[in-house]
Amino acid sequence: MVTSQLAKNINRTNFGQISENAVYEAKRSLLNWLGVAIGAAHHESMDKVLNVSRLMDSSPQATILGRKEKADMLFAALLNGMSSHIYDFDDTLLETVLHPSSPVFPAVLAYSEYKKKTGKEVLEAFIIGCEVQARLALAVYPSHYWRGWHITGSVGGIGAAAAMSKLLGLDEEKTSFAIGIAATDPTGLREMFGTMTKPYHPGKAAMNGMLAAFIAGEGFTSSKKALEAERGFINVLSEETKLELLTDNWGDNWEIEKNSYKPFASGIVTHPAIDGIIAIQRAHNLKPEEVEEIHITGHPLVKELTGKTDFTTGLEGKFSVYHCVAAGFLHLKAGVNEFTDEFVNKPEVKALRSKIHLTIDENIKEDQVKLTVKLTDGRELGHFVEHAIGSMVLPMTDQQLIGKFKDVTENIISEKSKELLIDQVYRLEELEDLEGFFQLCTPVESASRI
Amino acid sequence: MVTSQLAKNINRTNFGQISENAVYEAKRSLLNWLGVAIGAAHHESMDKVLNVSRLMDSSPQATILGRKEKADMLFAALLNGMSSHIYDFDDTLLETVLHPSSPVFPAVLAYSEYKKKTGKEVLEAFIIGCEVQARLALAVYPSHYWRGWHITGSVGGIGAAAAMSKLLGLDEEKTSFAIGIAATDPTGLREMFGTMTKPYHPGKAAMNGMLAAFIAGEGFTSSKKALEAERGFINVLSEETKLELLTDNWGDNWEIEKNSYKPFASGIVTHPAIDGIIAIQRAHNLKPEEVEEIHITGHPLVKELTGKTDFTTGLEGKFSVYHCVAAGFLHLKAGVNEFTDEFVNKPEVKALRSKIHLTIDENIKEDQVKLTVKLTDGRELGHFVEHAIGSMVLPMTDQQLIGKFKDVTENIISEKSKELLIDQVYRLEELEDLEGFFQLCTPVESASRI
Repeated sequence: MVTSQLAKNINRTNFGQISENAVYEAKRSLLNWLGVAIGAAHHESMDKVLNVSRLMDSSPQATILGRKEKADMLFAALLNGMSSHIYDFDDTLLETVLHPSSPVFPAVLAYSEYKKKTGKEVLEAFIIGCEVQARLALAVYPSHYWRGWHITGSVGGIGAAAAMSKLLGLDEEKTSFAIGIAATDPTGLREMFGTMTKPYHPGKAAMNGMLAAFIAGEGFTSSKKALEAERGFINVLSEETKLELLTDNWGDNWEIEKNSYKPFASGIVTHPAIDGIIAIQRAHNLKPEEVEEIHITGHPLVKELTGKTDFTTGLEGKFSVYHCVAAGFLHLKAGVNEFTDEFVNKPEVKALRSKIHLTIDENIKEDQVKLTVKLTDGRELGHFVEHAIGSMVLPMTDQQLIGKFKDVTENIISEKSKELLIDQVYRLEELEDLEGFFQLCTPVESASRI
Repeated sequence: MVTSQLAKNINRTNFGQISENAVYEAKRSLLNWLGVAIGAAHHESMDKVLNVSRLMDSSPQATILGRKEKADMLFAALLNGMSSHIYDFDDTLLETVLHPSSPVFPAVLAYSEYKKKTGKEVLEAFIIGCEVQARLALAVYPSHYWRGWHITGSVGGIGAAAAMSKLLGLDEEKTSFAIGIAATDPTGLREMFGTMTKPYHPGKAAMNGMLAAFIAGEGFTSSKKALEAERGFINVLSEETKLELLTDNWGDNWEIEKNSYKPFASGIVTHPAIDGIIAIQRAHNLKPEEVEEIHITGHPLVKELTGKTDFTTGLEGKFSVYHCVAAGFLHLKAGVNEFTDEFVNKPEVKALRSKIHLTIDENIKEDQVKLTVKLTDGRELGHFVEHAIGSMVLPMTDQQLIGKFKDVTENIISEKSKELLIDQVYRLEELEDLEGFFQLCTPVESASRI
């Protein structure tokens, strides 16, 4: 009866029982998530869904982060879930490749704005929703993912329903029904990767999970063993039956504490090299014309996944370690702006890329890299990265997360709003209402990309 | 490239190319579907979802069939899809147990009301949407169903998206995207059977498919091989790969022509016995006190699935062939009103049930039954049913469908409305707009069950 036990756990867990470290990491998760959501708010796919939401002519109940428009709660959840995953720059639980924030925060925040919930309630619901989906992800991984489900969408709806059940104050039975209704409504085939439908998955998960909790709250019935039954979620969508992972040692520690953040907007195998070149540049501040050649020695996957040399789009640039290193050299970062079509085609970027070479070495680990920069004056600068920033061993610092937040929200919200938001996120549990918080996520006229 | 080919077929098929017989069967499907949707409009589960839809405070764009309230298009699709499946009394494609009308009509009708589409456009979109979902059901059956998917929900969303693509006039590429977005968002675990979430499946399928087509219409991109790809719908949700069934011989005939309707509101194995007792009563008009004993000789499944003798709820009565025969004897029908808690507990009903006995006989086929009624005056009346009404061999006649429609909508819409609706359904292709049609589906004050 793990579904019932989970419902009981959700119902009986309160903010006071959650560790300080979990709360701290939840706030870091929010800062990272909020930044990437605001950053992609004006992507063309957002306009398309916003146009559809307008058809229903519903109440503007919740903020579309980074935009001046509002939408009803369900569409706000869909839209914010989408935007936060558009850049593939959101947080990751590395064991299951689940992106925990993107299906859960949009539902929790939209309802909290509508119903004037406190910062503490937001954190409580988010951490509990994350716990449920992360444990479910562990229970079905890897067969679920390998079968073809985009785990962030398929499991995320249940996370959103769990978080919403907590936020709505549902009793144990209704919470189990909310999980059931969300379980019967999974979203996300991996076939959609590379299309606008990929970020639709966490958005739709947030929307589906929110709707599930709303109707369960009205007394709508569902199965009480939706996860573990013979024809329930786990058996139908995976080959795994690690049911004990769902409930064992609940509360001893929190999955959100294992959350990780991407410092760079490209695939994780490129991160050691970007990290290394930034370290060299911080020490030496080289100009491109001083460089004769940059030599990367990396793990075989670097070449396999990111060996692209000839390309014309920003998206392809994410799959070129040469471009990633050139970006890090020139800008000391590799964020959204370093992967635009315009940037990858700049003559100076292309010129630098052509000076960069890659050798693979079986003895180098995935989060390591060796870099050698040969200068025109004959000098050679070497650098070895033992663990790339953003890995479990070397998580991004608060300062780095703040830097990422500021960078990714550039030209959308003002510098002042950024500073105030960062402050509010780090003391979220003190906020009695979030009205000011949502106003800060709304661009002022002059700062909007529209 | 079956998804692209399907999109092409949807785009290039027009009303004029559809056979008269398919149009005729689509109208019969509508009459049956409309009746059961109106009939269940005031079920408690409907109120629960309606309460949630009110939270969004959206425009009353489309009729909730059988109710005075309206909802926005997406919620109207959800609500009407639900109500039509609440009594398990909707139509069935017997090869795949797909209920074709319940996920498709709600989306098509809600949009047609909003956008003032013609009756011909409704029929065209419905028949094409049905064709897509019925072929997909054949392509994934039986493994998809046996894996645990409620095929009406899981495949139905793609049917709704296909129908909506036609109704919206999407081009081939956008139609393939609509299929893709719906494919990534399936609804329906069989574990939910027996709960309010079962009828949620076709409703949510209608809602998901409608949303998919709307956003595809805005240019939102998806995979163009969502059905056939390695990690697409068919491979992820079934073990079958009968891809050719999706597109071969498109237009030669139409799956809707194979549609079947339930004459009685109980499981199909009870239908021969109900059919038989009604035939006896039509001939002899017996009173219960004239009966000493009724003897049923039937297929072994009759006992296995419907052998219940001791029960107190209407729902359980559906699993008692004794009750079914008693109902047919007393009322000459076995509709919604014969399976209420009140009716199954009436003393005269219980008294008659106790006189009914069942013997199984391996030589009797599933759609056959032998009945013997022993009268108190010593006479014996025998009747053999060769094919029960409602089977493929002996479909319900128009007169019988009209009788079912009138019966199931009783006390919700007026007799006059029923007559006018029946007339409008049978000449739907002549209707230039459906305004009057939807008004007739709305109860007048005195006739409402509210």
